[in-house]
Amino acid sequence: MAGNSLGKFFCVTNFGESHGPAIGCIVDGCPPGMDLDKNDIQIELNRRKPGTSRHVTQRQEKDEVEILSGIYEGKTTGAPIALLIRNIDARSHDYSNISESFRPGHADYSYWYKYGIRDPRGGGRSSARLTAPTVAAGAIAKKWLSQYSNIKIRAYMSQLGNIAIPFVSWDFIEENAFFSPNMLIVSQLETYMDDLRRSGDSIGARIEVQADNVPCGLGEPIYDRLDADIAHVMMGLNAVKGVSIGAGFDSITQLGSEHGDEISPNGFRSNNSGGVLGGISTGQSICVSLAIKPTSSIRVERNSVNQKNEAVVVQTFGRHDPCVGIRAVPVAESMLAIVIMDHVLRHRGQCGEINK
Amino acid sequence: MAGNSLGKFFCVTNFGESHGPAIGCIVDGCPPGMDLDKNDIQIELNRRKPGTSRHVTQRQEKDEVEILSGIYEGKTTGAPIALLIRNIDARSHDYSNISESFRPGHADYSYWYKYGIRDPRGGGRSSARLTAPTVAAGAIAKKWLSQYSNIKIRAYMSQLGNIAIPFVSWDFIEENAFFSPNMLIVSQLETYMDDLRRSGDSIGARIEVQADNVPCGLGEPIYDRLDADIAHVMMGLNAVKGVSIGAGFDSITQLGSEHGDEISPNGFRSNNSGGVLGGISTGQSICVSLAIKPTSSIRVERNSVNQKNEAVVVQTFGRHDPCVGIRAVPVAESMLAIVIMDHVLRHRGQCGEINK
Amino acid sequence: MAGNSLGKFFCVTNFGESHGPAIGCIVDGCPPGMDLDKNDIQIELNRRKPGTSRHVTQRQEKDEVEILSGIYEGKTTGAPIALLIRNIDARSHDYSNISESFRPGHADYSYWYKYGIRDPRGGGRSSARLTAPTVAAGAIAKKWLSQYSNIKIRAYMSQLGNIAIPFVSWDFIEENAFFSPNMLIVSQLETYMDDLRRSGDSIGARIEVQADNVPCGLGEPIYDRLDADIAHVMMGLNAVKGVSIGAGFDSITQLGSEHGDEISPNGFRSNNSGGVLGGISTGQSICVSLAIKPTSSIRVERNSVNQKNEAVVVQTFGRHDPCVGIRAVPVAESMLAIVIMDHVLRHRGQCGEINK
Amino acid sequence: MAGNSLGKFFCVTNFGESHGPAIGCIVDGCPPGMDLDKNDIQIELNRRKPGTSRHVTQRQEKDEVEILSGIYEGKTTGAPIALLIRNIDARSHDYSNISESFRPGHADYSYWYKYGIRDPRGGGRSSARLTAPTVAAGAIAKKWLSQYSNIKIRAYMSQLGNIAIPFVSWDFIEENAFFSPNMLIVSQLETYMDDLRRSGDSIGARIEVQADNVPCGLGEPIYDRLDADIAHVMMGLNAVKGVSIGAGFDSITQLGSEHGDEISPNGFRSNNSGGVLGGISTGQSICVSLAIKPTSSIRVERNSVNQKNEAVVVQTFGRHDPCVGIRAVPVAESMLAIVIMDHVLRHRGQCGEINK
Repeated sequence: MAGNSLGKFFCVTNFGESHGPAIGCIVDGCPPGMDLDKNDIQIELNRRKPGTSRHVTQRQEKDEVEILSGIYEGKTTGAPIALLIRNIDARSHDYSNISESFRPGHADYSYWYKYGIRDPRGGGRSSARLTAPTVAAGAIAKKWLSQYSNIKIRAYMSQLGNIAIPFVSWDFIEENAFFSPNMLIVSQLETYMDDLRRSGDSIGARIEVQADNVPCGLGEPIYDRLDADIAHVMMGLNAVKGVSIGAGFDSITQLGSEHGDEISPNGFRSNNSGGVLGGISTGQSICVSLAIKPTSSIRVERNSVNQKNEAVVVQTFGRHDPCVGIRAVPVAESMLAIVIMDHVLRHRGQCGEINK
Repeated sequence: MAGNSLGKFFCVTNFGESHGPAIGCIVDGCPPGMDLDKNDIQIELNRRKPGTSRHVTQRQEKDEVEILSGIYEGKTTGAPIALLIRNIDARSHDYSNISESFRPGHADYSYWYKYGIRDPRGGGRSSARLTAPTVAAGAIAKKWLSQYSNIKIRAYMSQLGNIAIPFVSWDFIEENAFFSPNMLIVSQLETYMDDLRRSGDSIGARIEVQADNVPCGLGEPIYDRLDADIAHVMMGLNAVKGVSIGAGFDSITQLGSEHGDEISPNGFRSNNSGGVLGGISTGQSICVSLAIKPTSSIRVERNSVNQKNEAVVVQTFGRHDPCVGIRAVPVAESMLAIVIMDHVLRHRGQCGEINK
Repeated sequence: MAGNSLGKFFCVTNFGESHGPAIGCIVDGCPPGMDLDKNDIQIELNRRKPGTSRHVTQRQEKDEVEILSGIYEGKTTGAPIALLIRNIDARSHDYSNISESFRPGHADYSYWYKYGIRDPRGGGRSSARLTAPTVAAGAIAKKWLSQYSNIKIRAYMSQLGNIAIPFVSWDFIEENAFFSPNMLIVSQLETYMDDLRRSGDSIGARIEVQADNVPCGLGEPIYDRLDADIAHVMMGLNAVKGVSIGAGFDSITQLGSEHGDEISPNGFRSNNSGGVLGGISTGQSICVSLAIKPTSSIRVERNSVNQKNEAVVVQTFGRHDPCVGIRAVPVAESMLAIVIMDHVLRHRGQCGEINK
Repeated sequence: MAGNSLGKFFCVTNFGESHGPAIGCIVDGCPPGMDLDKNDIQIELNRRKPGTSRHVTQRQEKDEVEILSGIYEGKTTGAPIALLIRNIDARSHDYSNISESFRPGHADYSYWYKYGIRDPRGGGRSSARLTAPTVAAGAIAKKWLSQYSNIKIRAYMSQLGNIAIPFVSWDFIEENAFFSPNMLIVSQLETYMDDLRRSGDSIGARIEVQADNVPCGLGEPIYDRLDADIAHVMMGLNAVKGVSIGAGFDSITQLGSEHGDEISPNGFRSNNSGGVLGGISTGQSICVSLAIKPTSSIRVERNSVNQKNEAVVVQTFGRHDPCVGIRAVPVAESMLAIVIMDHVLRHRGQCGEINK
């Protein structure tokens, strides 16, 4: 409720700083009786962890998770599940030159003016490292949703800077460093990223997140709509500047007779709605798009000010993702899993088990 | 908490159906001691109400608000403020032909499968009519924010279908039926809408919402970020399919050296961030864009099914907005006001009064 | 969340002042599909309303409820149910002499220092009149619980001042003005109250509240235990100064071998627990006791201060309950119904339907 | 929200089981800029920890706390503070004989029927060991309240079984194993406890909790009253069966002219209210009494059933507190500190800083 909890029923409370002793979360509200072991979570953390290719930050973190509570003899008990990840490779000295200046486009500035104090080591609380506990919590949600309703949640990168990535197959997502659903374009992405890295600059990206087999009826209008809660978590993901569902911004130029998805006795004939009508899931796939901005920690010199509001020139060295959009892919999946799980529990609380 | 409350500290709980006896809301958490009378609220309701031009629904509702509580001798007391709007012009017979069928693109379908019951009269709970209480609550937030910090919240239509509306001046917004900031384009908009209305179809739109003079420091990361909460309310607004902040989807193709807003001792030099960094306001204007889909209630024949899942052809008669984007303008302002107010109160709860 | 909402899932948001235009509430989270009409609610309001005997306040209020939303063709739809009760008999002049002084034992004082403004008419927001919307909401909970699980919630007065009222039968509760389960003692209560009223003083009381047929498994430890949430609502009821469950304060002098309720294959052999162990219902009856203080609005002269902190002598005329404990009986039932209903919905959200 | 979080603004989320790897909590909402180190918390944990005298459980736990986040250079940053306590002395074999039977008066029974699974090792989640994280969180609240408003929160044992403990001085509380404010009675308490321990039985107790220097104005009626929230946390403390404020159950027999605390320009003349009127603090000391039941884990043989509902005789060996009331004293202080702190932050969110 003080800002670091997500979900009303399946509730994730996050803690930690990039270079503090540890990061982690408490997952409260997981139904009892589900098989869960450390590996279920580790497998998702490994997809997000740094250092997996030359295209992401070279910080070396194994991101090994410890389950501290909520499990008895391999099963969830209904009690809160606390997850702990120790920080290992925290080189604070890398940040000394920026500890009193503000990086353009970085949360340095706003944290300082909000709290009057900030932890400059690795971005402190504002670091994308804090998405790791979200991924850990999302792994639990993903597993439960899969068992409850065969719900499958996946994401991929659909654009890197100006390079559009046409969808080919989900099968390719885990076979390249970019979560690209298209193997033919991978070498182009690699070349682009290698050049970018040498230039010391960074780039934005677009991600598509999708949930299949979602039952009809999830969402609590008029304010806690499913799409509203999806927008909340997605815009809350580091570096996201835009969220759309279904036809998204293309809806602006559509006629009603184009946009409204016709229905036959065999189901919907199109999916402009992105699987949500009136804030409630329709049973179609839920399709979300995210715009990810380029990271603000770059070697290119930028004009800025320091904490005394004096003009300075800022360059960021250290180990940063030249495209935060890459590692955002598994995080976006986790976010969607958490929201959908929260809504499954909320729905069955008010209305009982889902019928369709 | 059951879905019809918005805001944690400045909390709006909404009730009502399109053709029920009344709609309204309870605003809980308004600080005591502010002058407030009915007219402060009525003036905003009048901007949203139906029947103000030939381009919006011709339903005749005065949307007259009654303040039931929370005011003593013209001032807020800190107690909840209940607001009541009676429904007057409720022609239920208009809806008889669709009461057992689902309009493509409409919440009919999802409400039915979620609750097992739905109020078909005018869309029941899913009607855009339920934005009126939100506007009433937003009027209170707007007034308080204006007094607290001179915060000014405004919105305009920036695109109608394929017609882009270049920004000229805020002064024009209230002088035309489209909340267009550009008078030269109004006749083109009128012609387009007149043709559209005759065709029985509907169209999407794009809206820009902006808050000026917002202090630095609002937002509660890492989950209840200001931008996340803005995305939540905006995506929760009827017919919205996309929300972006600052550079939004343009961030995808930006380099870090382009996107990150440089700072000088006199302030920021650009506003790609849209006034939010790391989920916290920066003191710059907060700039939000919305994609609004075309309304689903159209006279054009569409294929669909009824509650027995039998194929039917659906046409919607009755009185509908051919472009719901028009009346969404004042609603979007209200939503932004409610979120910002909630965050001012949350911030001063945890950190005390805002300094900058 | 701002203080005027009760329940997380079955959520009641209350508004109004004693002498404002109206009082009421929004009930959000009621499951869809339950038959509900105005009379279901009115019957409970009538049990609490003023003026039903000479032993309670003589204010004349019919407390007629209007259902504004959430019902379609006689059934709940899952949408919020707004309930409105107009204030009729509001004689503000009765309060003029106390509008700038503080009644000893009254919320006048604390409201003034909290908000810097208070509505002195009839106690404003702090009036016991605001329990009427709670009773209306409780009527909905009672009906649903009765249908869901045959849960029955009742209360009675067990002590009036020094007069203990031995329990005889639930059948008598509605047959006298005191909610006494014992008809033999009623004339003694009447005489006592007649004398008290003449003296201009007031008296405390003790109430027992009981829920039968509650399934095992309700409550969300470790903080949102069922007993904790019961204590919350009961201590939040006007004039309550003590709440106990099961053996209550007698537990202090019990040995473990006395207190712990033995179990046989046929069930528990005693009920010192009051139906709650570890914060979770056991399937036994839930038994709660309340200590109600005497009302602070009395004709007896008391020393106090005014808003300028000057010494004054205060006497309260107007129409007050000489024993607020009497009308607290139906309110306490409603409070218990709301808490139990909230926990049924929370339980089935996390764990699915209750088995035992 | 799923039951393991306490407080809306100063929010404590608790995790762990008695014999799992660790217990702990996340404290979200602590204001930034306060000096805080491990020792501030350890000192309070040491008051509650087991094994400090022969009158409490002989389990050996150092209860050493590790601060995982939320501190930078010795000061709070406004980020969540995660606290970790490893379990060391977990002898699971002690519990093997009760792992399939229910101890009369114990949460074994209700946990089993709620979740369909329970961790029998040391009571699992229902163990009083889980009050340690609450104490750790309370230590932070205590420190902040002390600095913010010189608020002082203390508690003592006022009755052990039938032995009343007349209050003499706060100075003695820390000088004996019983938190007795009266040294003369300590040897009597020791003799009683030694006899009790030998008998294998347990006993109840009464505790008084008090907060001094609380400003006027805390509490959010009409539901989130200060006294209601105090009752919630206190009844939520393991083994509590009754909570009263001020005159408490004595209010039942008081006349209004006795109960209502008269006021002079120098302040209140008595404190029957216990420092709360209308749910809002008055500026007087807040006085709360708790009834603590005897622990259910005793060596005395009791009749019960097992998980198959077969009759069994249960005896509990292992290491238990013969009077859980003793170690409940520091826990009750922590609970009160958390509630008051939450209300300070809530108040200043809505109304700004407290004036009186």
